[in-house]
Amino acid sequence: MSLSNLDLVNECDAFPYYQADPDLYLASISTYFELRVANHDYALGYMLPSVAEVFRGVPNWDLNDDDRILTLTSGSTVSERSEAVEQTLLALRTTGHFKVLDKWRNELYAVYGRNKELLFNVERSASPLLGVVTYGVHLTAYTKDAETGALKIWTPRRAKSKQTFGGMLDNAVGGGISSGESPFASLVRECAEEASLPEDLVRRDARACGTVTYFHIRGEKAGGETGLLQPECEYVYDLEVPEGLELKPNDDEVEEFYLWSVEEVQGAMRRGEFKPNCALMVLDFLVRHGVLTEESERDYIEIVARLHRRLEFPTL
Amino acid sequence: MSLSNLDLVNECDAFPYYQADPDLYLASISTYFELRVANHDYALGYMLPSVAEVFRGVPNWDLNDDDRILTLTSGSTVSERSEAVEQTLLALRTTGHFKVLDKWRNELYAVYGRNKELLFNVERSASPLLGVVTYGVHLTAYTKDAETGALKIWTPRRAKSKQTFGGMLDNAVGGGISSGESPFASLVRECAEEASLPEDLVRRDARACGTVTYFHIRGEKAGGETGLLQPECEYVYDLEVPEGLELKPNDDEVEEFYLWSVEEVQGAMRRGEFKPNCALMVLDFLVRHGVLTEESERDYIEIVARLHRRLEFPTL
Repeated sequence: MSLSNLDLVNECDAFPYYQADPDLYLASISTYFELRVANHDYALGYMLPSVAEVFRGVPNWDLNDDDRILTLTSGSTVSERSEAVEQTLLALRTTGHFKVLDKWRNELYAVYGRNKELLFNVERSASPLLGVVTYGVHLTAYTKDAETGALKIWTPRRAKSKQTFGGMLDNAVGGGISSGESPFASLVRECAEEASLPEDLVRRDARACGTVTYFHIRGEKAGGETGLLQPECEYVYDLEVPEGLELKPNDDEVEEFYLWSVEEVQGAMRRGEFKPNCALMVLDFLVRHGVLTEESERDYIEIVARLHRRLEFPTL
Repeated sequence: MSLSNLDLVNECDAFPYYQADPDLYLASISTYFELRVANHDYALGYMLPSVAEVFRGVPNWDLNDDDRILTLTSGSTVSERSEAVEQTLLALRTTGHFKVLDKWRNELYAVYGRNKELLFNVERSASPLLGVVTYGVHLTAYTKDAETGALKIWTPRRAKSKQTFGGMLDNAVGGGISSGESPFASLVRECAEEASLPEDLVRRDARACGTVTYFHIRGEKAGGETGLLQPECEYVYDLEVPEGLELKPNDDEVEEFYLWSVEEVQGAMRRGEFKPNCALMVLDFLVRHGVLTEESERDYIEIVARLHRRLEFPTL
């Protein structure tokens, strides 16, 4: 197996684009249900029909088969909506309807409306059932050879015991953003937890470098139901780490850190060893640092655009 | 007048998005004609009906009103197609049909197919009539204060005499890529012509940082017909310039160079003093350098995605 960089993008950003193939896009869309909340006439996510079906007749929800819309009908405040959502999800967890709910995290993700207002919070493990946009932070930690300028990238291998993407390669630091937490606060916390990076170093030197956005369709390795729709926005940070400072796992999520040359990283990418969305952060890093260029990468223009998908749902 | 950064993006990337408003998008599309070449059943660009109409009955062209497609029917090689296109455009220039052709440049732009193959070349000034994707290079030249790390950005003011966007602010170096010229070769040439930058410095230190892509609708300041459709791909480069090295115009296209703080640049952006697409390169630079962040920019996610539009036509 040798994956091209565009293959890696296609694996993660798998939802069709209207302009690339209108028929395929509309055929996909027409099988899904839109998720909405009352008095907001736009989609917050797409849900599989097999998932939406389970909400039929459940209090606080209305399933409109003609328009293929599932609406949370109750609640006009964040807490009312959030409670109604939680009540349903807890019941579905108890009934064992969805495997993804077996990994209940007791962590809330935020769902925003068109005016960037918080509409409701939802248990993290349930977010792919609803198909709503989720937010994360990813940091690439690298060193630069003082003489040659050659980059080395700190690359962790996920613990084999992890339920999702066990044993695969990852970005130095990455994690989901809980509702109410700022991206940078989330980053600082994860840097300590996952890589033992000193807080003062992160606060001083971590550099925001944009976002990577994509529309994923969950496969087997994510665990739980497949085919769930997962539009994601990752806030991307770079951190140049002084030579000699070693990244070390501080929890049981990482097995080991490697300090790899760009060539070693690219080899592992081609072999499909990276967690799919983490490969995208590496590509974004390599583009921004002039390693991937139009001379070295045949699909340069397509890749750069695809790393920054405009999501069709409201975002923060 | 105080423009937000999203206003600046909207001004340049003005073509509607299907997902944002399907009705608006389809209404727009349905007024345009697709440009195609024989035996390639996909659009290379969108043309205004008032432009396509002029090709009716012209040898080598077929105007299909039912499907709204203008096809170059003659030629099966690059040179045959290019000659047929040139022949028509020269005739249209003579008849004075289009104001944009008054600025005939004797410079050819490349039009590519889905397999990244060159399909034909077209006179630069005519490319917005056909609505095809054009390519350019833009370089941001900056200095970094050794002590504070504060960025300063070299910002030229275009000569008032320039036919397009005269007197407006620009990126340090920018220009269109002629057919057959590589982006980097184009960059090196423009750096000497426009900013007197030493070739060895540019070759050593200019860093490729991705692409900025957008779909522009031409307004008054571009000169010539308004409403022409202009999908563009700009290869973006950064160059950290040593303090003390001064950028100077080497031709009559630039009036003067300023070395401005980020605040001065942002002030001029808010006042609408930048050429529209150049403002996008500044935004991309500020995002990649951690100046614009989710904390300082309300529309961060939207802006980053919009700077990297996936164009709906084949690109190189």
